Amino acid sequence: MAPHTDANRDEACLIVHGPDRPGIVAAVAALITRNQGNVVTLDQYSSDPSGGDFFQRVVFSRPGLTVALPDIQADLAETLDPLGLAWSLTDRSVPKRMAIMVSTSDHCLLELLWRHRRGELPVTIPMIISNHTNTAEDVRAFGIPFFHVPATGPDKSKAEAEIARLLDGNVDFVVLARYMQILSPDFLDAVGVPLINIHHSFLPAFIGAAPYRKAKERGVKLIGATAHYVTKDLDEGPIIEQDVARATHAYSAADLQARGAYVERAVLSRAVQWHAEDRVIRHGNQTIVF
Amino acid sequence: MAPHTDANRDEACLIVHGPDRPGIVAAVAALITRNQGNVVTLDQYSSDPSGGDFFQRVVFSRPGLTVALPDIQADLAETLDPLGLAWSLTDRSVPKRMAIMVSTSDHCLLELLWRHRRGELPVTIPMIISNHTNTAEDVRAFGIPFFHVPATGPDKSKAEAEIARLLDGNVDFVVLARYMQILSPDFLDAVGVPLINIHHSFLPAFIGAAPYRKAKERGVKLIGATAHYVTKDLDEGPIIEQDVARATHAYSAADLQARGAYVERAVLSRAVQWHAEDRVIRHGNQTIVF
Amino acid sequence: MAPHTDANRDEACLIVHGPDRPGIVAAVAALITRNQGNVVTLDQYSSDPSGGDFFQRVVFSRPGLTVALPDIQADLAETLDPLGLAWSLTDRSVPKRMAIMVSTSDHCLLELLWRHRRGELPVTIPMIISNHTNTAEDVRAFGIPFFHVPATGPDKSKAEAEIARLLDGNVDFVVLARYMQILSPDFLDAVGVPLINIHHSFLPAFIGAAPYRKAKERGVKLIGATAHYVTKDLDEGPIIEQDVARATHAYSAADLQARGAYVERAVLSRAVQWHAEDRVIRHGNQTIVF
Amino acid sequence: MAPHTDANRDEACLIVHGPDRPGIVAAVAALITRNQGNVVTLDQYSSDPSGGDFFQRVVFSRPGLTVALPDIQADLAETLDPLGLAWSLTDRSVPKRMAIMVSTSDHCLLELLWRHRRGELPVTIPMIISNHTNTAEDVRAFGIPFFHVPATGPDKSKAEAEIARLLDGNVDFVVLARYMQILSPDFLDAVGVPLINIHHSFLPAFIGAAPYRKAKERGVKLIGATAHYVTKDLDEGPIIEQDVARATHAYSAADLQARGAYVERAVLSRAVQWHAEDRVIRHGNQTIVF
Repeated sequence: MAPHTDANRDEACLIVHGPDRPGIVAAVAALITRNQGNVVTLDQYSSDPSGGDFFQRVVFSRPGLTVALPDIQADLAETLDPLGLAWSLTDRSVPKRMAIMVSTSDHCLLELLWRHRRGELPVTIPMIISNHTNTAEDVRAFGIPFFHVPATGPDKSKAEAEIARLLDGNVDFVVLARYMQILSPDFLDAVGVPLINIHHSFLPAFIGAAPYRKAKERGVKLIGATAHYVTKDLDEGPIIEQDVARATHAYSAADLQARGAYVERAVLSRAVQWHAEDRVIRHGNQTIVF
Repeated sequence: MAPHTDANRDEACLIVHGPDRPGIVAAVAALITRNQGNVVTLDQYSSDPSGGDFFQRVVFSRPGLTVALPDIQADLAETLDPLGLAWSLTDRSVPKRMAIMVSTSDHCLLELLWRHRRGELPVTIPMIISNHTNTAEDVRAFGIPFFHVPATGPDKSKAEAEIARLLDGNVDFVVLARYMQILSPDFLDAVGVPLINIHHSFLPAFIGAAPYRKAKERGVKLIGATAHYVTKDLDEGPIIEQDVARATHAYSAADLQARGAYVERAVLSRAVQWHAEDRVIRHGNQTIVF
Repeated sequence: MAPHTDANRDEACLIVHGPDRPGIVAAVAALITRNQGNVVTLDQYSSDPSGGDFFQRVVFSRPGLTVALPDIQADLAETLDPLGLAWSLTDRSVPKRMAIMVSTSDHCLLELLWRHRRGELPVTIPMIISNHTNTAEDVRAFGIPFFHVPATGPDKSKAEAEIARLLDGNVDFVVLARYMQILSPDFLDAVGVPLINIHHSFLPAFIGAAPYRKAKERGVKLIGATAHYVTKDLDEGPIIEQDVARATHAYSAADLQARGAYVERAVLSRAVQWHAEDRVIRHGNQTIVF
Repeated sequence: MAPHTDANRDEACLIVHGPDRPGIVAAVAALITRNQGNVVTLDQYSSDPSGGDFFQRVVFSRPGLTVALPDIQADLAETLDPLGLAWSLTDRSVPKRMAIMVSTSDHCLLELLWRHRRGELPVTIPMIISNHTNTAEDVRAFGIPFFHVPATGPDKSKAEAEIARLLDGNVDFVVLARYMQILSPDFLDAVGVPLINIHHSFLPAFIGAAPYRKAKERGVKLIGATAHYVTKDLDEGPIIEQDVARATHAYSAADLQARGAYVERAVLSRAVQWHAEDRVIRHGNQTIVF
């Protein structure tokens, strides 16, 4: 049975999205009320009230939520399915299970472990997977299992299969915290849960290898990072969060990279937190972040 | 009759706040639905779901809104008054009427006039009032009436009375865009509409005269501005918006002031826009900004 | 004779750059001292002390500067030319002459005119050139000549020739404040002074037409702007300044564009100010900004 | 003998400050040249070229620096002492020795230890001192000595004496990384090295206990942090660095505190790095940060 936390006990998070039409907000609100729920937070957005898309996130409290969940879910199916609306209902006292994949850079990994230890990320972390071993000691000092899955050689399929086997059924989402291997579409299909990636970003964009060297050569005045969901289009998935820091001509490429690491860890942490709190709704290649 | 704009035609903005209890969201949503409204945007916040305060802003579209408004208002009174909830309903195609009061500094004034001319502020500007004359020519170039009300001498009551008479019944809110006279509690009572003020802000705070000189002496690394509603406690009213810009040791007090002017005009403009769009709910000495 | 301002009277700005070697700082400092100058501000940067490039900006005061300039210039030539160093010496009381080219969007233009009127830009503005007429009245209200040079049809050479003729000998640099015509390499050669351009920037970059629509489709969380010198590679010249503002899913493409306009005008103004103050040194496709 | 690092080998950092007069830059540059030094970076600032204060930081390379230091110091004394200028010369390959004092909050402490481990702080850390024990295990995992000095009871003089004894001769500066005991003027005298403190900062300032609760009650839209040198005036010493993060009405006091922790650790880290790199010159109650 999934672990429950005392925080957020008896609170549910309901996500609804689909084609907009009059009355959805009222139907959802009536449903919550007739199921003895009390709205704590409600965010709603319509891309266009006439023929656009509807997005809603509601957190509501409901005494005895665990017992009532099946009834509420049945009511949701009966009420929303006929309207063509997708929905999900989660018990906020059940933290999501998050795996982290990492290569050699530890800055994003340690930031996540640290925030988790401080109680700021509503997740459990059943495992860290790396194609290197340098972070193993740190990870285990946090009391978290570390699995080494080497990814040498041109054929990554064996490594991907082993990673997929480790993740299978054990995690709700995966964070690529500077995991420097390209993942195949087959792997993404096999894993079947959302993956969140972080990568450096510049104005203008520098594509390909050695981006910090190129940014230095171009003399950028800002360095940035983008956290996004992973899709089969590399680095092109829906953006969750972005941020930048200022740079000057006096920064070496190494300085840009070091400074960029602080932006990366902050941006990735926010994206992970929002995902873990069910604040992010994917919609085509965009996200709605409530 | 008030001017209507084509933008936001048939859109209403409903603000509801008061003691939280289960079912408010459902009651409001049902009300909108039974009055043929369709929710465009909904923001809701509870300071504490058990015994806290409830705040909601709903924008909804409703064909033929102008004709239907009295019926909707009657329904709101019947539905929400018994629950002890305060509410307001505005037709979004009717811009608010905004007066600006200013002394000699023109940066905030011109920013507001400019944004208004670009169609970015949903307001009309029936008048500018100043205790000086240096901005008259600029103001009239924008086609806006300018009234000069001198405020010399220790007794400001005559000037305040004349300003109150100019404003009376003609405006929905007043912006103090660097108006450097202290306003009496009697004046605030007489005016009877919200006033928004902008003032410089520093970490730490420097109280009294010559704040930029004091900030220079202390070597601050940030300069800021705060926009707030005016209350009888000078500069202590509910904060609407704040922002900062970086400073260095190389800035003179004049440089700090010049740089601060850009923060002030940006912060005040955002506060004015949010107020004009009914996004700000006052609650004690705080604001909820949706 | 060029106009002089009281501000910065008897202050000179010296820029030195070229291959680094030991002793340049000492040679320049000794030169200033023996010419009765007193250093006010000195910034120096070496890309690499061994075999890299040297950049220096010195502001120094010197009583009777106007009379002494030729002697100082002769000393500079004698001292620095043998070291293979490029240098420029400017009298800071002589403002640079800046032309602005603009199409229909007025936000960058008005910001510059406004800052200029407030005395914050050390420039004179002998002319505004536009391929449209909508900003003419505003420009002339600032007391500045406005020249309309239409640029219709596929052949822009006639328009470019007329613009080049207007600029010839009359300006020290040109600002493209949302001038939406592509300028030919021949035009850039004919003008012979630096041009500064502003354009929107996103993470990731969106190339080609309708960038705000593309940014909306991708759901960007930041919108940015980049000011750069114009080179024959369109939008690829040395970056002077960049900045961003946050965006959310609730922003329409029009909202992104309106918000982006505020970033553009701030970024362009800073770039213009720094150029006008001789703070920017071009070096290949980079800038050093002191 | 002090540990030397390979980074910055043969680089010296010279700080000069005092009353401005013509020729200082030239005298310093000539001195460096005649001692076979080559300027890497030079920053200079005058509060007022006529009768103001002069500040300069020069990094220069000099083969065989360790051997040459005494001669250079003698030359500096002979050259600059007669001009009434204070100066310091440091070998950049010798890291400063930094002690950290901490109470129960670990966020600033861990950020510093982490940056140090990543090689981003040019310091050694001979000891951590705490009046609590909860961080001992983390500290020792980094291989750093942890000393527990309880500070219970009204009389802190015994604890302060023990801390002073531990620090005596062993450190070059002390960081108060959320050390929640007030330090006596006697202690500051006894320690005799600079202390850097971090504290929360708000617009407006909230003085005394429970600042985050007060900030919540006031509805602030920004939360900030200030790093400063410790003087006998509590929290009023020269500011080194400041920054802010945005907050909304939806933040609880606990949320404000958690978010504030991230600002605190970033601001303190930058202040520590700049101090360790000799970039900060104290001048009265201000700092010059190069």
